[in-house]
Amino acid sequence: MGRLDFWYEFASTYSYPAAMRIEERAEKYEVEVYWRPFLLGPIFAEQGWADSPFNLYPAKGRYMWRDLERICEALELPFMRPPGFPQNGLLGARVALSLDARERMHFSRALYTSQFAEARNIAEESVVADAILAAGLPPEPVLARARSTPVRAALRAQTEEAAHRGIFGAPSFVAEDGELFWGHDRIEEALIWAATRPNGSI
Amino acid sequence: MGRLDFWYEFASTYSYPAAMRIEERAEKYEVEVYWRPFLLGPIFAEQGWADSPFNLYPAKGRYMWRDLERICEALELPFMRPPGFPQNGLLGARVALSLDARERMHFSRALYTSQFAEARNIAEESVVADAILAAGLPPEPVLARARSTPVRAALRAQTEEAAHRGIFGAPSFVAEDGELFWGHDRIEEALIWAATRPNGSI
Repeated sequence: MGRLDFWYEFASTYSYPAAMRIEERAEKYEVEVYWRPFLLGPIFAEQGWADSPFNLYPAKGRYMWRDLERICEALELPFMRPPGFPQNGLLGARVALSLDARERMHFSRALYTSQFAEARNIAEESVVADAILAAGLPPEPVLARARSTPVRAALRAQTEEAAHRGIFGAPSFVAEDGELFWGHDRIEEALIWAATRPNGSI
Repeated sequence: MGRLDFWYEFASTYSYPAAMRIEERAEKYEVEVYWRPFLLGPIFAEQGWADSPFNLYPAKGRYMWRDLERICEALELPFMRPPGFPQNGLLGARVALSLDARERMHFSRALYTSQFAEARNIAEESVVADAILAAGLPPEPVLARARSTPVRAALRAQTEEAAHRGIFGAPSFVAEDGELFWGHDRIEEALIWAATRPNGSI
């Protein structure tokens, strides 16, 4: 059984459709998906960007929103443009990282739905709490743990690992042999790679 | 019959696979393709870039070369990384624009092949001349006309129109109703759009 690391950032628009469909696609190829939340902010800052490139380059930004709308329509995914972009996904990423695999997936999908289907602001603790509830967990202890020193450190390490693996955007997919795929539109290629070259051989 | 404008820049790596396969794909959907060469340089300069983003952002650049290699392999297109990037495609764009539709397509494909399959430098006049020959035309008069004032002005106008249509990268595809698609991986969606909504209606 192949394995694929799914690197995502809660502020990332194209990570939304990727998060909503990767498990279903992965099942088809019998690939196990590891959900790896990280922060793009520090990686963008390294590139000299203090904001999302979609804000820095308006023509690119306008296109992205239209493209995302088309993608969601084709996938029959609800979509509502959120207030403010990029939203601060720091708390969400800490919560996600503090959870076990299955809960992490459920929480992450719930938080993406809040942001991109319900146009809520994921920087608000109550919105994150609702996503924790949606994953079947009690918000208070989960939030307390998400803010603990080990979880904060783990998220920093996660983001450093992303940069080390050559990741420069989200979503990204990394196979066991290190092969990197960037963007929602590479899900299929990434899964096929992971399914057919699980150990890095052809 | 639908119509799709194919906006390409000779220095653009992802325009290479797009140029090599768009006609074959368009035939399937009965869409007529208008080949529209333009220059990305002035558009990048507006965004504050003095070089290709693939050079400005090395992680992105490393990924792009690998991704292009994978795409060409999947399409069974020959690929050899050219010396120097981005290459100066000004003369090529002028020649392309000076030709009629059919010759423009043949010339453009020949020039892309020179650069990305044979690793030649398209800034050299002899390389452009060979591509003109490959399109069945005599290089000297074609080159002379390509350098004429009207052709130079037409290329500037073409590039301004690209910016006006919201184009910020290449390849881009624009349907008759103005719908924009960016990137080689959007060929299929763009053709389907052009085939099913030729007048902008659903």
